[in-house]
Amino acid sequence: MVKQERAARTRETLVRAAAEVFAEQGFVTASIAMISRRAGVSAGGLHFHFGSKTVLAQAVEDRAAQELRGITAAAARSAGAGAVGAGAGGNALQALVDATHALMALLAQDVVVRAGFGLCSDASWSGAVDLRRQWRLWVEETVAAAAREGSLAEGLSPQDAARGVVAATVGLEVLGAYEREWVAPHTLTRYWTLMLPRLAAGGALEGLRPEGSTGL
Amino acid sequence: MVKQERAARTRETLVRAAAEVFAEQGFVTASIAMISRRAGVSAGGLHFHFGSKTVLAQAVEDRAAQELRGITAAAARSAGAGAVGAGAGGNALQALVDATHALMALLAQDVVVRAGFGLCSDASWSGAVDLRRQWRLWVEETVAAAAREGSLAEGLSPQDAARGVVAATVGLEVLGAYEREWVAPHTLTRYWTLMLPRLAAGGALEGLRPEGSTGL
Repeated sequence: MVKQERAARTRETLVRAAAEVFAEQGFVTASIAMISRRAGVSAGGLHFHFGSKTVLAQAVEDRAAQELRGITAAAARSAGAGAVGAGAGGNALQALVDATHALMALLAQDVVVRAGFGLCSDASWSGAVDLRRQWRLWVEETVAAAAREGSLAEGLSPQDAARGVVAATVGLEVLGAYEREWVAPHTLTRYWTLMLPRLAAGGALEGLRPEGSTGL
Repeated sequence: MVKQERAARTRETLVRAAAEVFAEQGFVTASIAMISRRAGVSAGGLHFHFGSKTVLAQAVEDRAAQELRGITAAAARSAGAGAVGAGAGGNALQALVDATHALMALLAQDVVVRAGFGLCSDASWSGAVDLRRQWRLWVEETVAAAAREGSLAEGLSPQDAARGVVAATVGLEVLGAYEREWVAPHTLTRYWTLMLPRLAAGGALEGLRPEGSTGL
């Protein structure tokens, strides 16, 4: 049991070290030697846990994808729980706001998530996981839910609204990799203060919190 | 003279071939052999014109930066010329719309510009030119000009407006590198149809053309 725990910790350390090296140098330049040195794990140990650099990159992407699923599920739950008031609707839009806050916070804090997204635009890597696509599909679903619950502004196409949000959040993610300011909570709060009056139906707007409903 | 023209054409061919290879594989994986083969120029010829792969990448960035300067200057001129009507203002916002249309069209059509932007998020490359920064500074200036001419919506912070536009356009650029739909003219027209009612002062809005004033 203790041995299993130690193995799990070593794997976690290796995934984190790989993510750091990928984020700094890109997939192709990153070497097994660099990653094992960074992790403080021998090259033999690395090979025992992950057969190759490719398997490590897949592990980084999988961990990031799992975090992303966790975020979107939690945002949907918390926005549902903190209901905005009978008839006002707006829960789906609040879930959208909450999830973007959680995503940007993760991008700022968790190098595995940052590296996972970074691999999306790394021309030297092509993985099975596409985090930006996963994010886009969730945003589309959530905006469609907002339209169904009547909280989307009248006359606004859900597709246009979703695309606008996806473009801006992907832009923040990309810019934030170099300048942390772009993924700071106040940057996102100001983005939603800009966007919500355009996206939300009149009745839904006042219940919405651009800073996120979980006080992020 | 003929010899000089031929040299200029060869350089142009090499820059384009390098851009194609960088866009497909990233800077570090791209090899001189691949680029010279793609260009139909001998490795010796490549070395004669560009000392190294680094010099070629710099040439790609410089060409892209020059195109970007051309776009923003032309948008400022054309929006100024097609004045929206006395007292209505809105020229700076129209310049912003026009420049984004011209930029997305270039990203869709010109691999040198696409590769130049791609190098910004290539972890294996660090150049002297930062196209996204150059774009951001122009957007900030132009939104500040809109605020001065009174065409920005009342109570809206120019900084927030500029950040929103920069985030979305960088997102479109990044997503468009893999899925051309994101940089298609109608995608951008819909983006501006979404944003302009939020960004423009009431009086300025009706003169603005989300599809661009140059009929792009």
